[in-house]
Amino acid sequence: MAKTPETEHPVKVFGWAASDNSGSFSPFKFSRRATGESDVQLKVLYCGVCHSDLHMVKNEWGVTHYPVVPGHEIVGVVTEVGSKVEKVKVGDKVGVGVLVGSCRHCDQCTNDLENYCPKQILTYGAPYLDGTITRGGYSNIMVADEHFIIRWPENFPLDAGAPLLCAGITTYSPLRYFGLDKPGLRVGVNGLGGLGHVAVKFAKAFGTKVTVISTSLSKKKEAIEHLGVDEFLVSRDPEQMQAAASTLDGIIDTVSASHPVVPLLSLLKPHGKLIVVGAPEVPMQLPVFPLIQGRKSISGSGIGGLKETQEMIDFAAKNNILPDVEIIPIDYINTAMDRLLKSDVKYRFVIDVENSLKPE
Amino acid sequence: MAKTPETEHPVKVFGWAASDNSGSFSPFKFSRRATGESDVQLKVLYCGVCHSDLHMVKNEWGVTHYPVVPGHEIVGVVTEVGSKVEKVKVGDKVGVGVLVGSCRHCDQCTNDLENYCPKQILTYGAPYLDGTITRGGYSNIMVADEHFIIRWPENFPLDAGAPLLCAGITTYSPLRYFGLDKPGLRVGVNGLGGLGHVAVKFAKAFGTKVTVISTSLSKKKEAIEHLGVDEFLVSRDPEQMQAAASTLDGIIDTVSASHPVVPLLSLLKPHGKLIVVGAPEVPMQLPVFPLIQGRKSISGSGIGGLKETQEMIDFAAKNNILPDVEIIPIDYINTAMDRLLKSDVKYRFVIDVENSLKPE
Repeated sequence: MAKTPETEHPVKVFGWAASDNSGSFSPFKFSRRATGESDVQLKVLYCGVCHSDLHMVKNEWGVTHYPVVPGHEIVGVVTEVGSKVEKVKVGDKVGVGVLVGSCRHCDQCTNDLENYCPKQILTYGAPYLDGTITRGGYSNIMVADEHFIIRWPENFPLDAGAPLLCAGITTYSPLRYFGLDKPGLRVGVNGLGGLGHVAVKFAKAFGTKVTVISTSLSKKKEAIEHLGVDEFLVSRDPEQMQAAASTLDGIIDTVSASHPVVPLLSLLKPHGKLIVVGAPEVPMQLPVFPLIQGRKSISGSGIGGLKETQEMIDFAAKNNILPDVEIIPIDYINTAMDRLLKSDVKYRFVIDVENSLKPE
Repeated sequence: MAKTPETEHPVKVFGWAASDNSGSFSPFKFSRRATGESDVQLKVLYCGVCHSDLHMVKNEWGVTHYPVVPGHEIVGVVTEVGSKVEKVKVGDKVGVGVLVGSCRHCDQCTNDLENYCPKQILTYGAPYLDGTITRGGYSNIMVADEHFIIRWPENFPLDAGAPLLCAGITTYSPLRYFGLDKPGLRVGVNGLGGLGHVAVKFAKAFGTKVTVISTSLSKKKEAIEHLGVDEFLVSRDPEQMQAAASTLDGIIDTVSASHPVVPLLSLLKPHGKLIVVGAPEVPMQLPVFPLIQGRKSISGSGIGGLKETQEMIDFAAKNNILPDVEIIPIDYINTAMDRLLKSDVKYRFVIDVENSLKPE
């Protein structure tokens, strides 16, 4: 008899899954592997709800295996470790982010850039080494190779900190790699959502002056008063945009809805860098002259390697950088997804897995 | 009476101009300013024919003032210098490239990046400080501020060297700036024309391994045997392109005809850089995933500053880097433009101004 998700592994797990591209969630019983010699098993306490979870459950990128258990902003407490595990011990607080595997020996992996390994294994919805499909943190138990475990800093909040494991590293890494981490530089953040508001916090912590670019004025007051943003531009106001032309050293573009790129390029100084971390489904229309005339760049960046993710979490703890979150019970997830689709959240939902996910 | 091109300045000049967007050239009398205190006047000996001359005479970028006298790969011998000129003296060999002016005090100018000054003045077809329209090197006499004069190295050929003033710096500058000048790196050159073949020569001189990407096999033999190219890919051969996926550290894209960008991105290693120096008129279609998944970049680059242009010419002279040229008389220019449109030149036309342009 073919094995089912519930019987393919020995460890019984309970979570919520979407069964088809309606994206609607319901309770789901499945299983995880026994803790291998390099593995860490954890009890999941909190899991952030990433915008890519929404794309995935609706199969908007065309790669989804159903049923899908999302969640790659996972924090929890270690319940079991394999015999060779050195990084953590039972009782430690830990995190698991977007990756649970990579080849470990290619140029990318040996340079701590597992996030660019062609054989990377995503935390959910991807074939694992044993051929089973990975399942994420909308569940009560998680297991991962210790290499993909992040040590959680002492006294650093688990609930609000969870989204750093994707939203945090996705914005921290390009700010660092593209040199937008120097005091006095002027950094733009396009879109003030889950990714954007964390980008603002890191950019401010690096000492840059931050300009938020948004489609509407509605977020201006909070951006300036609460997030400490230095300048707020409404992208649909040509006069504002014109007045701010050639003022920014770089922009982190977090918007995953299709949007014009030329107005953003216009905001860049010569040699400025537009870094795309949101992923619109349709191709951008990119005229070449704005790039040539100012030696400007458009780059992409995707999460970060494990070493840098640990560095980011430690930096966030040291600088008290925490996403703004709305804590929800698991049975609110369908409503949360509807609200996320409308950008109706400030700024990240985090599921209180421990207190709301009750195995039936 | 309104002044005509022939009477607006005191120095009588003879050249060839295109009078309308047919792009057809005919003899043209005009004038240049008297040599100012910071100016250098030169007798034009040779002038390269750049692909942008073709775009300009046909007004394909929508910015052409007619009649237009093109030419921004100008070499000649100094005939007069202003009282404050220190860089050169009468009898010196010199060059004038794409620029004859810039603001001289902005951030770009003070960093020797006049090519990104918003007030840069192009060598032809642009309003000069005195309000007259600049005219280029398809003419017997040139004048320029000494800041925009390039000293020509001793014993370095004037005819074949002329195209370095645009094609050379356009490819040298991005190879340097984007770090594609390190021995052992693998550099791609898309398109083997005027720009492409010079890009190959500089990239080889820097010690990189060079892959040419071309739409057809026709240039393969010469690319490998004559230019020393290490690998030749036919972009329309999916198997070849697939086999070469993720092998290049960077690509200089010299193609100004519209072309798909995704196959080029696929050739890049993670963190690879695609640098566009040709300028298609229609926007590129840029899907974002290929950028994000490999932290890849698309950048533009336009010529170079004066300091770097001098450095490039000196480097070329030291390393014996010379474009492959076909020397033509000025009255061949209409035929040359027709051939250029069909890419029927190996690889750059250079007008023998001294011996073929006879003032009537």
